[in-house]
This record gives sequence, C-alpha cells and structure tokens, in this order.
Amino acid sequence: MAQIRDVSKLAGVSPATVSRAFSDPGKLSAGTLKKVLAAAEELNYKPSSLAQLFRVKRTNTVLVMVPDIANVLFARVVSGIERIAADNGYNLLVIDTKDNKDVESAGIEMVETYRADGVIQLGERALRWLHRDAEKCTIPFVHAIGTGLDEAYPTVTINNQAAAESMANYLLSLGHRKIGVLAGIKGRLVTQHRLDGFRAAMNAFGVTLDEGLVEYGAYSLSGGAQSAQRLLSRRRDATALLAMSDEIAIGAIRTAQDLGLRLPEDLSITGFDNIEFGKYCEPPLTTVMQPAERIGEVAMTLMCGVLRDELQGEIHPLLPTELVIRKSVCRVEEPA
Amino acid sequence: MAQIRDVSKLAGVSPATVSRAFSDPGKLSAGTLKKVLAAAEELNYKPSSLAQLFRVKRTNTVLVMVPDIANVLFARVVSGIERIAADNGYNLLVIDTKDNKDVESAGIEMVETYRADGVIQLGERALRWLHRDAEKCTIPFVHAIGTGLDEAYPTVTINNQAAAESMANYLLSLGHRKIGVLAGIKGRLVTQHRLDGFRAAMNAFGVTLDEGLVEYGAYSLSGGAQSAQRLLSRRRDATALLAMSDEIAIGAIRTAQDLGLRLPEDLSITGFDNIEFGKYCEPPLTTVMQPAERIGEVAMTLMCGVLRDELQGEIHPLLPTELVIRKSVCRVEEPA
Repeated sequence: MAQIRDVSKLAGVSPATVSRAFSDPGKLSAGTLKKVLAAAEELNYKPSSLAQLFRVKRTNTVLVMVPDIANVLFARVVSGIERIAADNGYNLLVIDTKDNKDVESAGIEMVETYRADGVIQLGERALRWLHRDAEKCTIPFVHAIGTGLDEAYPTVTINNQAAAESMANYLLSLGHRKIGVLAGIKGRLVTQHRLDGFRAAMNAFGVTLDEGLVEYGAYSLSGGAQSAQRLLSRRRDATALLAMSDEIAIGAIRTAQDLGLRLPEDLSITGFDNIEFGKYCEPPLTTVMQPAERIGEVAMTLMCGVLRDELQGEIHPLLPTELVIRKSVCRVEEPA
Repeated sequence: MAQIRDVSKLAGVSPATVSRAFSDPGKLSAGTLKKVLAAAEELNYKPSSLAQLFRVKRTNTVLVMVPDIANVLFARVVSGIERIAADNGYNLLVIDTKDNKDVESAGIEMVETYRADGVIQLGERALRWLHRDAEKCTIPFVHAIGTGLDEAYPTVTINNQAAAESMANYLLSLGHRKIGVLAGIKGRLVTQHRLDGFRAAMNAFGVTLDEGLVEYGAYSLSGGAQSAQRLLSRRRDATALLAMSDEIAIGAIRTAQDLGLRLPEDLSITGFDNIEFGKYCEPPLTTVMQPAERIGEVAMTLMCGVLRDELQGEIHPLLPTELVIRKSVCRVEEPA
C-alpha cells in the first residue's frame, strides 16, 4: 500500500503537507491541495489509514474523553485502558467532558495540533458529535462503551439488547410477570437498546411490557431512588424491578427499604454493570456483568493498532456479558 | 515588586532566559546565569513568584494528578476543581498516577516543557517525591487533600486529627468503650493523623486505645471487609468500629452482616468522607463529611492565584468537616 512518503515524493511536497491535506486542508493553497489529492488518488493512497498522517509528529500520548469521571463504571474502563497503554509505552491524558461539546472539541483539537496521537471516547456524546461532523473525523479515534457498529472508526462495547434480554429472562423464569423498569436517560441509545431487550424477553413469554411500569431517570443513585419512589408510589403491584444500572438499583433498594418493603421477598431488584458496591449492598445485588476493564483493554489495543497502522481482526467487537446471581431476586408463584 | 521583564532588561537577556535561570539553570552558561541572578538580587525579584516564570508561554491548561481515578472521593475533588477551572477559562488534564513516580515525573515535565501551566496533586504520593527533590519544585504547584502545612507551595485539606477526634467523641458519648479501629494503609500520614485523633478522644475519656483492636488495610471496600473479618474473628467484644473511610466501613458492614450481627444493635460502625454510597447502604452510614468538592474549588482558586501572581490570604487552608449522623450507630449501656 502507498505510504505518505510516496505521495509526498510524487506531489513534490513534504510529508507534513500531505498530512495537512487530510487533517487541515484549509491551511493549504488550492494548488497544493489539488497536487496532493491527485498524487494520493494515483497511488491509491488511503487517507483513512490514519496512522500514516500522524507518523510525522508523535507524542506517544492518547487522550481519553470521559463524560463523567465520578462514574464508577467509566473509571474501571479507564483502568483497563491504562494497563494496555503502559504496556505499549503510551501516556494517557484523561479529560472529564461533562458531556460538553466544547470540551470534546478541545480534545479533538489537541490531536489535530499534535499534542496527542489519538482519542478514545467513552460513552455516547462524542459519537453524535462525530455523526454530525463526520467529515471532521480525520484523527485516530476509538469509541468505547457506546453504541453503533457501522462507524468507520473502531468501537468496542457489549450487546446491550442481548444482555438486558437475558436479565429479563431470568426474572420471567422465576415467575415474575409484573415487572417494572427503572430506565436510564430516555434520549440515550443505550437506554433504548436495553429496553428493546427487556421487551423482547417479555414478548417471548407472552407478556407485554407495561409502559405504566417504566420510569426514566439519571444513571445515578439519586436518579434510581427517585424513579423507584415515583413508580412505587403509583403502582405497588410490581413484583420485580429491572434497573438499567447498579447505581439506579442501589438507589431503588434504599427507597424500597424506606417504604418498609422486605427485599427480595416483597420486591426483587436487579442491576446492570456489576460495580463493586453492588456486592456490598443489602441484599447483595443480582446484576449483569459488563466487562469494563476488558472493554478498556480492547479499546486501547485497537488504538495501538490504529496508531501503528496494523489494525487486525474485528474492529467492532462486542464483548461477552454474564448474569451475576446474588440475593436481590427471589421466585414468585407462577400466575394461575 | 520587580517583574521578569525588569530583570531581563537589567541583565540584558530575554525574559525566557530569566525564566530558564530559575526553572532549568543547567541549560544556561555559567556567565549568563550569574548575570541573571545578580540582576534578580539587585531588584529583589522573587523567583518563588512562580507565575512570572510562566507568563512567557501559557497553555491555559492545568494538570491534575490523581493517585486513583476510581476513588469516589478523588472524583468529587476533581469535580470541584473543574467548576473553578471552567469559570476561569482553564482546561484541565487529569492523570491517574496509580501512585507511580514515573507518571508523576512525566506530569511535572509537562509543565517544565510548557505543555501545562501548573499541577494540582491529590493525595500523598507526590508530596514525598517533592520532599525528596525539593529543589525541583520550581513549577506552579498546589497540593489538595494531602497533609503538611509547612510547604512552600499552597495546600488545602482538612484537619484529619480533629475530625477523627470528633467522631471518636461521638461514640464515647454514646457509651462505647471497646472501640475497634479499621485503619487505612499504615504508612500514610493521613492514617497516622486520624489514629492520633481517635487516641486523643479516648484519652480524654480515660480510655486507652487497645492496639489489639486496630486493623490496617487498603482504603477500599475489600480492604474494609478483610480488616473487619480479621478483627471480628479475633475479638467479639468490640461494640463499635471506627473506619477511616466510607469504603472501609461499607466493606465492614457486609462482613458484619455475613457474620449474622444486627447493625447497629450488636455493632456500631462509622465511616469517614461522606461519599454518596454511604447514604444508600443498610444501615445508612454515620460518617465525617469531608468537603471534597469544596477542597477542589479552593485548590483551583489557589492555582489561579499562583498563575496570575495574585495569591492572597491563607495558602494552607484547613476546611471544616462535620459529623453526619445516620443510623449505623446506637447507644450502649455505660460500663458499670
């Protein structure tokens, strides 16, 4: 395959100019840009082979953009990224974006101005940003723990729908039929995918998901406590609550206990993620293990592949999840 | 007060050379260095007025070095730092050092090479590093949530001894005398300061801290569970456990419940920090509120003062703590 130096030679410009033609074309004169693009086309040089653009000036630093650094799950993904980064001689800079597009833009710009080699984005926000400005994504980019498989850049996540389906199946197999859902933020794809999974499992058991038993809220302890409060004050017929994160579930456990419910006898509650606190709450939380550290490791491995231009294998891996059965769920009598 | 440009004019060198004379003197010839230092002395120019050294080349970026990004308390401090940074137009880069000295050195070097304007260090590790290589600390530096008041650079923390003392006083006032301690890592100053506080309170009540009732361990959920396991398997006469963090306390609650103890009737447990999970555990945790976000805000405010050379007021503030009384403690009969 053609290298950046081949294009540079044919076009009669420096490799940095070739790089710029793809990363920041506005900086070049129209004539120079035309020459570079003609040479690239003639040599079948692939500008999507991003690593080559950045071989010119390396920082050995990878930027990790996290929507919320205080989120325990994201912190574990970062730990996995760090392990592989250290093994490969990369430094890591972690930016807490607070879902702020300006902060994300500043991060992208750090790569464009050679202050970092690439970006690993956690969560959903930047994905939408990149969707809107797709033509801007000319930097080494890996998306972890988000959604979407049809992107040009590598992604690593879990099958949210299938994982949610397996948890709903577990509750259904224990006789639960009146199942409430403590959903996350309504606008997030991850929320919709998990809801699809719950719905599919229920349909297979001939149960229709009761929309009156679905509450949306923040992916947080207080979000869970509030959603549970709203749901339980309206409807006491639910025998189980499917929460879309462990933090939501732990918040809901607190609310249920404050209402005097015995757990799990009066109400079963399940989580999602398998954060460490779930093992320590009372009752210990039944949940879906999301391999957070492993997601981080795979994301950084993919980033190394991009940066060294030796990306191999699946670039949209879906990592396996599993049910973690503890004590927050019990069997109920099958309906007559 | 003399400015860097005054020194530069008098010495007949560029401002960058004056800066270098204080930040990286090895790079200058002996003659140039001598000239700069003579001019600085004559004008009473203070090289400790670090901001001036860095006015030459600003990035508007502050580096935050965190020993463990997955630690909920540190994450809250970072949130506070972020708020003030945003208000003042600074970007933040967060590095998880994993207590690794090489990573810390790389962070310091980022400032020395003008890729960041200053460093806010959380926790203890870098403090020791700077102690050892004190002459190297020629960069804008603020230390948050550590220890030590006699440093040249600003620090912001709490009075760990007094806070621990107030919690021990609370237990003693409710009649507890056989009090176990679930301490953190033995080598940390913060651990020793909190232990001093517990001991002082007990002495005031005529009680001697029973060293057989002290267990050291990691500041984590599993560390707390293990320490409690060791302590309770050896000694069942303790009526209360003072834990040095909420994570330690929540781990200990799990162990106590697994041993069939009723909380707090059979055993009172207290935490330290007031992380959000403590409010949600069963029983809800009585703890010491450490104003983590506020510590971050004050640290960043001090950093702004350093960078703008307008540092005012107390540079070693100790922020107030308070007892948060929930349900994990009950009264015991006064000993006869």
